[in-house]
Parts: sequence; C-alpha cells; structure tokens
Amino acid sequence: MNSQSNTSSSSVFDAHYWAIPALDEALLANIDTTIANKTKPLGALGQLENLARQLAHIQGIDKQQGNKILLKQPTMLIFAADHGIAQNGISIAPPDVTGQMVLNFLAGGAAINCFCRTFDWHLQVIDAGMLQPAPIQHAMLLNKRLGEGTDDFSQAPAMSAQQAQQALVYGAQVAQQAIKQGSNLLAFGEMGIGNTSSASALLSLLGDFAPELTTGKGTGINEQQFVKKMQLIDQAINRVKTHHGDSAQHPAIALMEVGGFEIGQIVGAMLATAAAGKTLLVDGFIVTVAALIATKIAPRSRGYMLFAHTSAEQAHELVLSQLEAQPLLSLGMRLGEGTGAALALPLLQAAASFYNDMATFASAQVKV
Amino acid sequence: MNSQSNTSSSSVFDAHYWAIPALDEALLANIDTTIANKTKPLGALGQLENLARQLAHIQGIDKQQGNKILLKQPTMLIFAADHGIAQNGISIAPPDVTGQMVLNFLAGGAAINCFCRTFDWHLQVIDAGMLQPAPIQHAMLLNKRLGEGTDDFSQAPAMSAQQAQQALVYGAQVAQQAIKQGSNLLAFGEMGIGNTSSASALLSLLGDFAPELTTGKGTGINEQQFVKKMQLIDQAINRVKTHHGDSAQHPAIALMEVGGFEIGQIVGAMLATAAAGKTLLVDGFIVTVAALIATKIAPRSRGYMLFAHTSAEQAHELVLSQLEAQPLLSLGMRLGEGTGAALALPLLQAAASFYNDMATFASAQVKV
Repeated sequence: MNSQSNTSSSSVFDAHYWAIPALDEALLANIDTTIANKTKPLGALGQLENLARQLAHIQGIDKQQGNKILLKQPTMLIFAADHGIAQNGISIAPPDVTGQMVLNFLAGGAAINCFCRTFDWHLQVIDAGMLQPAPIQHAMLLNKRLGEGTDDFSQAPAMSAQQAQQALVYGAQVAQQAIKQGSNLLAFGEMGIGNTSSASALLSLLGDFAPELTTGKGTGINEQQFVKKMQLIDQAINRVKTHHGDSAQHPAIALMEVGGFEIGQIVGAMLATAAAGKTLLVDGFIVTVAALIATKIAPRSRGYMLFAHTSAEQAHELVLSQLEAQPLLSLGMRLGEGTGAALALPLLQAAASFYNDMATFASAQVKV
Repeated sequence: MNSQSNTSSSSVFDAHYWAIPALDEALLANIDTTIANKTKPLGALGQLENLARQLAHIQGIDKQQGNKILLKQPTMLIFAADHGIAQNGISIAPPDVTGQMVLNFLAGGAAINCFCRTFDWHLQVIDAGMLQPAPIQHAMLLNKRLGEGTDDFSQAPAMSAQQAQQALVYGAQVAQQAIKQGSNLLAFGEMGIGNTSSASALLSLLGDFAPELTTGKGTGINEQQFVKKMQLIDQAINRVKTHHGDSAQHPAIALMEVGGFEIGQIVGAMLATAAAGKTLLVDGFIVTVAALIATKIAPRSRGYMLFAHTSAEQAHELVLSQLEAQPLLSLGMRLGEGTGAALALPLLQAAASFYNDMATFASAQVKV
C-alpha cells in the first residue's frame, strides 16, 4: 500500500493507492514442474493441484521460504455491522440478533467458533458499526465502529462518502495488524442482519443485474419477505441510477449508496492483504461481493484470492462467475460468519502437504 | 458378526453371517432436536447437518458416550492387489507399479501419506495379492495375500469361489483388528493397476449396465486404450452371463468372475465395520463399487456409510446414485489410494464439533 497517496481523500478507491504487487509469471514453470514430477498421474488430484499452484505462486514472491507452501497462523476476521434496510422486516431475524450473535462469538458458542477451534483458526471479531456497541470488552473484539448501523438504503444513501472511504481504511488496518502478528492467510466472515440485501443491491449495481438475479432468501426468509426484499432493492437501484447515472457502477458510489460498514471493511481488508502479498480465502455470498468490489478497485487483487465454497444463496454462483472463481466446497450452506472459509482450510493444508512433501517418480523409483 | 454361521463355506455372502445391527430410529427425534436448537437458522449448515445427524445416529447405539459424536483413531486401510486384466495394456501404467507404489506408501512418499499425516489418519497397507510380495517387511504392511494377482477376467474367472470368500474373511479380519485397536471410523483405499476395469465390470454385472455406462478412463488412459477396455469388459460380461444366467448378478459370482482381491477384501472390511456398529467412510469409484456389493450382501450396511467425494471417473456418479449417496467433496480427483476419503475427515470433525459444542438459542440468549 502506498502511504504517499493516503493524503487524498478519494484515493482508497484507486488501484494506485493499494500498489498490489503483480504475481511473477516466470515462477509458474518451476511450480508446474514440481507438481508434474509427483508420484501420481498428471492432474489426478484435480482442483487440489490448481490450489497448490496458486498458493505456490502467491508465496513465490517470498524467496526466503524456497519452493514451499507455508500456511502461517490462519486468521479469520468477522466483521459485524447493522443495516437500516433490516427495519423493513425482510430478514429472518430482528436487527438485535447482530449484537446477540457477536456476544455468542465472544463466548465461543457459534458455528464459526466450533470450526475455528477444530481447524486452529485465529479468530477476531470487528464491530464495524452495530446498532449498539457490545456491552462487554473482550480481547477478541476490535472497535472499528463507523456508526450505529447504516441508513435504510431503500430510502437514502446507506452511508456518507467519508464513511465509505473510512470503511476501507479501517478494514485495511485490521488486516495489516493480523499480518504483522504473523498471519499469511486471512479469511473474512460477516455478521449483520440485513446484509444479504446490501450485497444483492451491490451486485445489481456493479454488474447491472436485475434484482431477480441477485436476490435470494438469505438464511431463510419466506416468500412474502422475499418479494418485498426484491422490491426494496429495485427501488434503491432506481434511486441510485437516477441520481448518479453511469457513476452508479463505481465502487465508491455503490458502497456509499447501498453498502454496509462490514462489507466496506472487508473490501479494505482484502486489498491490504493482497497488497502485502498474502493469501486471502473468500467465504460466501456477501464476502464474495466484497471480493468483486476489491477486484473492481484493484484487479491485481484477484490473483491472491482463493474461493472456499458455493453457498445456497441463489446469487452466489452469479458473483462467483463474475470473478471466474471455482470454489472448493459446495455443501449447501447459508450461514455466513465465515463458516465456508473456515471449512476449506484443511484443503489448503492438503494442497500444501502434497506440494511440499510428496515423493517424485525419481525419488520413489516408480516407473510409469 | 455371527461366528455361529462361520462354518458354512458360502455364508460370508449372506446378510445373516454379518448380523449388522439396525440403527435405532427412535434416536432421531433427540438428534434432530439437538441440531434444531443450535444458534443458526435451521438447515443453514447444509450437508454438514445431515452428516452430524448420521454420525450421531450411528454412534447413538453406544450409550456410554451420551449424545456426543466422537471420532476415535480414524484409520485408513489401503488394500493392494494386481489384476490379470492389466496384461492387456489398458491401464496408464504397467502392473509393476502396484508394488512400486506400495513401497512408496511404506516410505511415506505418496499423496495418501501426505494427507494422512496432515489429518492424523492411522494408515495401514494390506497386500491382498500383488504379483510379488513386497521385498521388505514393515510395521505398516499386513500380509493377506490371496495369490499373485487375479487371472485375466476377459478370458476366465478372476479368482476361485474359495478366494472370493476368503477375500471377505481377510478384509473383515483387518477391519476388526483396527476396531480392536480403538478406531471407530474406518476408511478404505486401494492400489491395483487394472482395478478400474474390475470395478467397471462388477458394476455392469451387478446393475445390468452396458460397459459404455460403467467404464471410464481411470487415472488417464488414451482413447484407444479406452475402447479396448470397454471391449474386454463387454467380452467378460457376456462370458459370465452365458455361464451363470441370472446368477451373474449375485455378489459371490460377480466378485469371483470379474472382481479383484483388494475389492473383495474391502467388501469384507466394510461389512465387519458395520457389524461392529462403526462408521465407514467411502472413497472413490472402486471403493464405492465395493460399497455397492456390501449393501447387496447386507442392506443394513448402508446406514453406516458416509461418502467422501465424487471422483472424475465417469461411472462414479452412477454407482453413487445406486447407493442414493450424496458425497461431501467434488474436486475432480481420480487418484485412488483413499485420497478422497482422507480429505473428507475434517468435514466429519467439523460436523462433530458443531453438534457437540455449539451453543443453543437458550444458552446464548439469542432471540429470533
């Protein structure tokens, strides 16, 4: 990241600000030879081979570790915030549940806690702007509050231009801190009642898709709520397009108009992770929309992204296809919290293990 | 397993011999309530919820551990054997590679070794009948040799009726030993140049499918080899049907005529695992064909089976559909060795962790 350009207030939405290093294409020949010499038919490990290739490629810029993949202190960052749009009763739960679930995270009782313990993820929770601050202090909880939830984007911009910029800056700070503490693999989760509505509206604006294509049932709303959700998103898109014209597709405008504090912070965290040359593991629908925004700001960030899973949210496949992503898992999950990303870590470890430790045909004296 | 009926020479192909306990349907209400009360929308963990349900159901018969899922000493059993059919040049590698790869397993250099180390599988290799015994002794290697490879099943029965029976007995012994040593989760892998041909022929016989539907390219043969492979399988099926008529579909006949020593031993190991009330994790195409045979011998074995992955072998989906199985992973793998099963273990651990440790709405004071 280029601290020189940090002085310009609009610069976090420019690729130059982040100065993400290009991956070195010259490394690939060596990586491909390494994989081809392993004692197995070429391609027989399927997607795991692509995974090892990308991990080695990303880490290849670190000459000190040689041609090895090392996954250091995998860190799961859950960004939590509230959404004005949730006042319209289009979510499975009332907005209070955002704060209640954050307390559940801090107490270690949520699904993401179970998976982080099982797979040894380091877990942090970031209050990006819940309705109320958590009533307790906790070592796991970071305060990056941008407000008391966003405004209802069906009526007005979700946040100010300044809040949208600050979201990226805050998210970047969180990721940089995790990297400073030794992590080279970051994943992102989210908690925010109403945030699938925000993600759907963002996808509609960024890709110029009708709400019918971008809207799903979140964690499980009924048909009536679903229809209302689409209507509100349609209303918001029309409002933004009328007001901004072609600029409605600009990430800064889209995030300000229909985004969420946690989504903006995830975008910033992703860009800072890529800028540091580290790997980022993308979770479900909301986090994948954040990834799409990150690539629209700085296309080079795409090279640092791995995709964990395809969720049951109907528009997830659409945004994945926009990113030309092939996720590792498809378990019909629709929980959020970073749970899909958490479950994919063992596959990264397996890819690293075969890449680093498997015998070659020559070393094992296997003659095919 | 009923040792009483062990005296009859044909009995290992009868369900009575194995005496697999029926799962207790009355346990499911309690299990479903446990899952429904967790702090997440119902069904939001997708297939992981079905997985936890089945694991809890299988383990529910062990009253001592209460309503908890425990995965004890996961054990990977790789059965290796050679196949006469491989003399026809329809495999990616010459038959010698079976023995070479077994030495690679013992040296710790194969993909399955990497995955077993990464996920803490206990690994054993069984010589079920390779062309030659391994030239070394090794603590990881068990001798259950049934011969020096099978005969070429395109010309004659692959093995004798006695060898087919003994295969099930040997496999059962191996599984029983692993269970005695503390494992309650067994997975099965295979190594045997030519064994996709055997698995395809078995599937054709058992399900009355044309070779076009059951035959694939294994670990990567060319078009010419593929056509020849189908022709040889077709020839074998016609031979068996002519000779046995309707009995060709009987597992004992099919295994004797076109089976493999390792496939038969896997069938026996599966039946013994189910008989002991333990969980068995099914790997790729060849192992899934063994699972199909096991269910045809003793339908109750199906309840103890989890399915790890869908491989790239074209007929794998066909045999999975015969078993009404929904595998956990789909990574385009086609390696064998048990690698797909090895990779699925973390998902079982994740299912256990949420089932055992996740907070309830009441305990976490989350109000939806």
